Amino acid sequence: MKTECIGIIGLGYVGLPLMANLNRSFDVKGYDIDARKIANLMSSVDLTGSIDNENLKKLKTKVFDQIEELKDCSVFIVTVPTPIDSNFNPDLNALKLACQKLSKLLKINDLVVFESTVYPGTTEEICVPLLEESGLSYNVDFSVGYSPERVNPGDKNQTVDKIVKIVSASNPIALQKVKSIYLKVTTAGIHEAAEIKIAEAAKLIENVQRDVNIALINEITKTLNQIGVDIHETLNAAATKWNFQKFVPGLVGGHCIGVDPYYLTNKAQKMGVHAELVLASRRINEGMPKYFVDRILRYSQLNRKNAKINSVLLMGFTFKENCPDIRNTKMHAVYEEFCALNAVVDIVDPICDPNDALKHYGVDVLKCVPNKMYDVVFCGVSHDIFMSGDFKRINKFLVKDGIVFDLKSILPNGKNIIRV
Amino acid sequence: MKTECIGIIGLGYVGLPLMANLNRSFDVKGYDIDARKIANLMSSVDLTGSIDNENLKKLKTKVFDQIEELKDCSVFIVTVPTPIDSNFNPDLNALKLACQKLSKLLKINDLVVFESTVYPGTTEEICVPLLEESGLSYNVDFSVGYSPERVNPGDKNQTVDKIVKIVSASNPIALQKVKSIYLKVTTAGIHEAAEIKIAEAAKLIENVQRDVNIALINEITKTLNQIGVDIHETLNAAATKWNFQKFVPGLVGGHCIGVDPYYLTNKAQKMGVHAELVLASRRINEGMPKYFVDRILRYSQLNRKNAKINSVLLMGFTFKENCPDIRNTKMHAVYEEFCALNAVVDIVDPICDPNDALKHYGVDVLKCVPNKMYDVVFCGVSHDIFMSGDFKRINKFLVKDGIVFDLKSILPNGKNIIRV
Repeated sequence: MKTECIGIIGLGYVGLPLMANLNRSFDVKGYDIDARKIANLMSSVDLTGSIDNENLKKLKTKVFDQIEELKDCSVFIVTVPTPIDSNFNPDLNALKLACQKLSKLLKINDLVVFESTVYPGTTEEICVPLLEESGLSYNVDFSVGYSPERVNPGDKNQTVDKIVKIVSASNPIALQKVKSIYLKVTTAGIHEAAEIKIAEAAKLIENVQRDVNIALINEITKTLNQIGVDIHETLNAAATKWNFQKFVPGLVGGHCIGVDPYYLTNKAQKMGVHAELVLASRRINEGMPKYFVDRILRYSQLNRKNAKINSVLLMGFTFKENCPDIRNTKMHAVYEEFCALNAVVDIVDPICDPNDALKHYGVDVLKCVPNKMYDVVFCGVSHDIFMSGDFKRINKFLVKDGIVFDLKSILPNGKNIIRV
Repeated sequence: MKTECIGIIGLGYVGLPLMANLNRSFDVKGYDIDARKIANLMSSVDLTGSIDNENLKKLKTKVFDQIEELKDCSVFIVTVPTPIDSNFNPDLNALKLACQKLSKLLKINDLVVFESTVYPGTTEEICVPLLEESGLSYNVDFSVGYSPERVNPGDKNQTVDKIVKIVSASNPIALQKVKSIYLKVTTAGIHEAAEIKIAEAAKLIENVQRDVNIALINEITKTLNQIGVDIHETLNAAATKWNFQKFVPGLVGGHCIGVDPYYLTNKAQKMGVHAELVLASRRINEGMPKYFVDRILRYSQLNRKNAKINSVLLMGFTFKENCPDIRNTKMHAVYEEFCALNAVVDIVDPICDPNDALKHYGVDVLKCVPNKMYDVVFCGVSHDIFMSGDFKRINKFLVKDGIVFDLKSILPNGKNIIRV
């Protein structure tokens, strides 16, 4: 199989581990539009922490910031981000650009496989026409496939080699090729979808289901708080039923669960369907930063002599525990909520890359807690490191009647601790 | 333990199996307001099919239609229905009546345990005051407990002796007594909730979660149908992800999942919280009968020479497969949809009690398919019996270009079969 050269377009949380994995069985080349990222990878630095050093060294001579370097590949796998824009609409620009660039390289018998999350129909209705700009004929000269990525950033158990891959393609011969490639990627097996749009839809509904379930628990949390019933004890009791799924209240950030539902609702809207549960779930989850800050204000009003919150420390800035990814992190929304209340807000997160935070959000993220006292400590991300050392000694940086908001219930019990 | 006599108030799907179970370890007596039901039980007839003949015979001398017969009991377990009224509001009449009747019997040191599903606060705010009409003092002379029923009608695996029971009580001594009783009921163990309202909330959110998840799949079904993507193939693909929960599209009837969410939303509304996801889910699930009938009309318009649907056969009338329970069955809503279209509608269901259907819905339910031809066969309940014998030979009772709507995908493939 070493004869086939596979080109990976986009070397982020999805593309890089996939490339490392494919490198065991195939010739591979990787391309990323971000020259700084390529320079880092060539120096064996992976800021995403997605692959280990050994794999990184094996790839350092195979990554490029010019797509032309991949022109001798016959299979291309596109793993570029598909985010949303500021109006919560699908932003397919990276995907479209990848297709346009690929159309310049495409040769007879080439296969282009997409892994980026998209709404049903995107591959055939948007990507294929762009690839046809090559002058080649779809399903005659070139074929496409779709195999949704299921990467779970920061999860060391459900890695790409251990998850079932859904595969689909535009014709049976292409499907055989897609299958033969992904069978080398995973030991968990593959699932053939009969149509590309089924594979596209499957990925979306996986993440939609998580988003809606978290939104439901957030809605129940707000309801039970109002009634005066503890949500965590209620969840613990309900979880003793054989078919109860224990989701927990919280913030939904990141590039998947907080984003993919908009791909479905956007397509639905175009087709005249109002996906009300999915939209309501997004609205509820997007509203949680404000809800949590409101709860802190109420607590302060009821329990403190001087209710005013002048200073806040946010513990954690990434969208997920033990993972440097800050895309669409809702801790930034919490930051903005407190800033809007005229509080001075510091952020501490030893896992987050401060340059990344400064570049994308214009905020300073500290590695250690500064020598200051805070009215509120908002612990929003359950990094393992927060459960050890200095971070645990919260009283050291909390004023006497200060408030600890412990979203993830990771801190030791104590006075003035609000749990969700 | 045989010294304590336990009285069961309400001998339906919950009370009867519980009584049979308790009868192994305790003296028990059962009361039901329905004299016909008591007469049946005394003749060893259980129309709900909840317990076997052997257990039935053991109970026949212990059931009464006069609650006074239970006056020597010291523990009462209330298992009356808590349905909704025609405005979708909680109907606590049976529960209140049970409390009022119990207040006439209540003695010093008695314990009253509730199993009926209620919104958080019901036991303490509604039931206790009614019990106090006895003149006895709450938590001094008498105590209460709450242990939500988790009966799954028709499920022979998750029976009351094999499920974890949540227990709670109004004081520690009562809790000990509640625990000692339920430890004899189940081998799966008990879960102590710190407060009664936590146990009440836990039961509600279990069923709310199911309702919302089914509503989500119904919403996705409608969306994907519009986009032209097969829902079942999409679900099969998504289900290959390790954390995907495979719910399927369909009707939500019965006395639990289609009812309990209203208990939560009603209480939420009173507290000023709009539980929008839960309410939207109810609306979506309640709208499915109309949606399915609309799909059949469209199919008929597109595929048949004479589109008019004159005759319809509904296969299945109970709310669930292999279970005679017709409470809140949505097959009746399907029936009404077709009647409103001026179709003649026959119903066949060998599992359903025809007297029950006539009494509660005023409809005739047949045991066998009549010797007629139908434009539409709507197969809505997956009774095992529908997968055998005459029921499978659908062409025998379908006109030439007739339509089969196979909600549960239980029929063999063929022409003119619509699957959801």
